[in-house]
Amino acid sequence: MKALAADIGGTRLRAALVDSNGEILDRRDGLTPPDPLDGIALLRSVWNELGKADAGAVAIAGSIRSSTGELVQSPNLPKWEGARLGAELSCEVLNDANAAALGEAWVGGLRGTGAAILLTLGTGVGGGILLDGRLWTGATGAAGELGHICVRPDGPKCGCGSTGCLEMYASGTAIGKAAGAGDAKEAERRARAGDAKARAAFDAAAEALGIVLAGLVNAFNPEAIAIGGGMVPTFDLLAPRIEALVKARTFRLAREGLRIVPATLGKNAGLLGAARAAFLARG
Amino acid sequence: MKALAADIGGTRLRAALVDSNGEILDRRDGLTPPDPLDGIALLRSVWNELGKADAGAVAIAGSIRSSTGELVQSPNLPKWEGARLGAELSCEVLNDANAAALGEAWVGGLRGTGAAILLTLGTGVGGGILLDGRLWTGATGAAGELGHICVRPDGPKCGCGSTGCLEMYASGTAIGKAAGAGDAKEAERRARAGDAKARAAFDAAAEALGIVLAGLVNAFNPEAIAIGGGMVPTFDLLAPRIEALVKARTFRLAREGLRIVPATLGKNAGLLGAARAAFLARG
Repeated sequence: MKALAADIGGTRLRAALVDSNGEILDRRDGLTPPDPLDGIALLRSVWNELGKADAGAVAIAGSIRSSTGELVQSPNLPKWEGARLGAELSCEVLNDANAAALGEAWVGGLRGTGAAILLTLGTGVGGGILLDGRLWTGATGAAGELGHICVRPDGPKCGCGSTGCLEMYASGTAIGKAAGAGDAKEAERRARAGDAKARAAFDAAAEALGIVLAGLVNAFNPEAIAIGGGMVPTFDLLAPRIEALVKARTFRLAREGLRIVPATLGKNAGLLGAARAAFLARG
Repeated sequence: MKALAADIGGTRLRAALVDSNGEILDRRDGLTPPDPLDGIALLRSVWNELGKADAGAVAIAGSIRSSTGELVQSPNLPKWEGARLGAELSCEVLNDANAAALGEAWVGGLRGTGAAILLTLGTGVGGGILLDGRLWTGATGAAGELGHICVRPDGPKCGCGSTGCLEMYASGTAIGKAAGAGDAKEAERRARAGDAKARAAFDAAAEALGIVLAGLVNAFNPEAIAIGGGMVPTFDLLAPRIEALVKARTFRLAREGLRIVPATLGKNAGLLGAARAAFLARG
């Protein structure tokens, strides 16, 4: 079996032909067209180029109505809002971080776990929840928006309309800004070189992550938590403080046996998760 | 089919014989013995008195290891910690608020919902999560400790070891204290009479509830949220502010169609949920 998969981000559009072992057989990477009609046409032609498959799925940044495959809300792709990707492309559609969780559970850092949480730290903070090994998408398809759980009610205004969201502390964007660096990469370099402001930015991110993850551990009692997204290389800068906070703020039984691990699929997580979703829908 | 059910709280032990329609056929209420050996003996004799049944289950305040039916941690029944209730009583054992969620989904305010959350506001704040109509107990059995999700990281120290937990703002105890009243009942009377301090206590509770529930809506995307426990009669004092905050702090699709309702089973919720758990385990 083969699946055609795509991961449509605010900047890049990735497409691939993936086999049922999670092997990427062929791929194309390009820029995401600002207009969804162009984007859908591009994806159709790229998928056509990649060859025939048994199933298809698209992962995209935003809220997807699961009943229709419609992109309801997308801060990163505002012009794409309302696009009925499921109907247009005759495929499954899922949120990109949800897809990443599914990918990590299939062939990545969450393989073999029944109940797990993935947080993706990048431009924003996304999430995915796996229960009994399956992706939990919720009543309407919007589950897993873990970046918009509140850390500090009086914290900074978030693009989502709320205040003090996890994303305001733990995204690459937030860490770069708090470090006074141009971007997250520069923040990481400075933190590793011992710069106090950069270290404080990573500590603040880890504190926010620890507080939110502790709440999720008390609520869901997962076996594992993976940290993914562009910030994965900084896992060692974040993990000790996250672990200390989760230990201090959870019930003993809720954290028993809990593993906090880095995600392993890098930029392919969403693509592989989309392929997995396609295979699962196919049955 | 009939089930023997029990709900063991910090103060009262309730036992009943329940039929498969959720009808309580006979019951006994008494005080919870401080020593678990006395408690187990009492429950055996009370169940014996109530008659023969096809299944049995106990709901109890604390963390229950699902694999063994052991009470791992219980702030309200510290002497009972370590009691292997499942083995001693040859029955199912579940957390009392988890049981209440199951009861409300069976014959109460959450009937007919697939994905729902129950918060019980009483001496403490408990919770239960229902997914696809089934109780989610987590990897080890500890899921649903929603009263210990953090609202304000720098908030007051909680008995669980963390700080600023929902329970510190929204339990009956916390509301009574913040209102400068003897108890929650008195706080309610004063709030209804227009007392500013009592009103502020309910507003602070509703704000904390709204913040935590917004996070849970973004994470789980449930169809319904029920507020239960001893504070149910104050639902009208809490709901408008909870609803406003959930609206302000969640993604559009995540709150679409969401209902926030009062629980309807009162003091019988845990007992009925235990009976339901007994029937479900029986198959």
